[in-house]
Amino acid sequence: MNKPAKPASGMLIVLSGPSGSGKGTIIKSLLAQRKDTVLSISVTTRQPRPGEEDGIHYFFRTREEFEDMIAENSLLEYAEYNGNYYGTPEDSIKKWLQEGKNVLLEIEVQGAEQVMNHRSDLVSIFITIPSMAELERRLRDRGTETEDKIQGRMQVAKRELTRAFRYDYVVLNDQVELAVQRINTIIDAEKMRYTRMENTVLEVLQDAQSE
Amino acid sequence: MNKPAKPASGMLIVLSGPSGSGKGTIIKSLLAQRKDTVLSISVTTRQPRPGEEDGIHYFFRTREEFEDMIAENSLLEYAEYNGNYYGTPEDSIKKWLQEGKNVLLEIEVQGAEQVMNHRSDLVSIFITIPSMAELERRLRDRGTETEDKIQGRMQVAKRELTRAFRYDYVVLNDQVELAVQRINTIIDAEKMRYTRMENTVLEVLQDAQSE
Repeated sequence: MNKPAKPASGMLIVLSGPSGSGKGTIIKSLLAQRKDTVLSISVTTRQPRPGEEDGIHYFFRTREEFEDMIAENSLLEYAEYNGNYYGTPEDSIKKWLQEGKNVLLEIEVQGAEQVMNHRSDLVSIFITIPSMAELERRLRDRGTETEDKIQGRMQVAKRELTRAFRYDYVVLNDQVELAVQRINTIIDAEKMRYTRMENTVLEVLQDAQSE
Repeated sequence: MNKPAKPASGMLIVLSGPSGSGKGTIIKSLLAQRKDTVLSISVTTRQPRPGEEDGIHYFFRTREEFEDMIAENSLLEYAEYNGNYYGTPEDSIKKWLQEGKNVLLEIEVQGAEQVMNHRSDLVSIFITIPSMAELERRLRDRGTETEDKIQGRMQVAKRELTRAFRYDYVVLNDQVELAVQRINTIIDAEKMRYTRMENTVLEVLQDAQSE
């Protein structure tokens, strides 16, 4: 084998699921376990909250800057909530993938579909809940939401569950550590896809030619 | 939830790779670990060797019976080697899959392609070797093959490696227990494919309707 192997590029992983499915907690634990995986940073036009830093929690941009990014087609997806833009910048993702890092996108179901329509080279995972009753319990346990908001979120969750078919994988979050382990399994398996193992096979063949 | 969930059907797994890649050893260890997975039994027209039992090691059939199976289209794939037919009967596979068992097909590269051309609902795994030098060492270690046969097998292995792109996954067999663990990871991940998790999602939604 003469040529050094091209470093395998990372994979783009879309992680989505209803509010209350536990995406955030799962991701925190997953990132603590996997040095090969980073979380994409979103860009937003909303004001930073105390303690939030530009480039760590979000990229904070003006409305004008954000609209330039839309015009330049440099966002993988974006949406507007409560008068603020939120989006996923493509640049940093590309850089990480080239460095061989897996990049996690934590996005809500609608944004996830935008990304899936836009790119086919990704692994998509839908986090599901054990039951509606359990979702209700989790939303209530937050203690921060009004009854109306809870009922609203339950309705949205039902709608979002009907979109699970758009994803490659469905991971049940009955226990956070089990859900994290399941996602680890998916990432490890996806690393053995032919496309990601091609270099290994080509090296053996090169080796055969040079004999 | 009123209706009992339909039992999830098993998955058909094609495992292939060059002679000397260690398929047989890997499968033995894998089957000892997984109660959810069985090995498909081939049908052949060759004579049983001492100790081989019909329905356990092979289904032993006459040439006429075998040709009837070909005519009835009841073989998933077949080939002729040294004047004997070898094939994979579809019936038993279907039964196992319906019972929720994963069915492993251990077939050589040409037969594997026949199966992959024929069915899309399968998971295909190509076992690869760390290097040609290591393959040569393994073939020599058998101590049963002539120099000519070894060189012939090496040539066939090279050709077969160029077909790896037809498979979903490539598993490196550098150490048997690592290779087995990798296949376990693939099977566990594939169980979380949307199609295999659909019932879980539908149950949550049914539950939501009945509230």
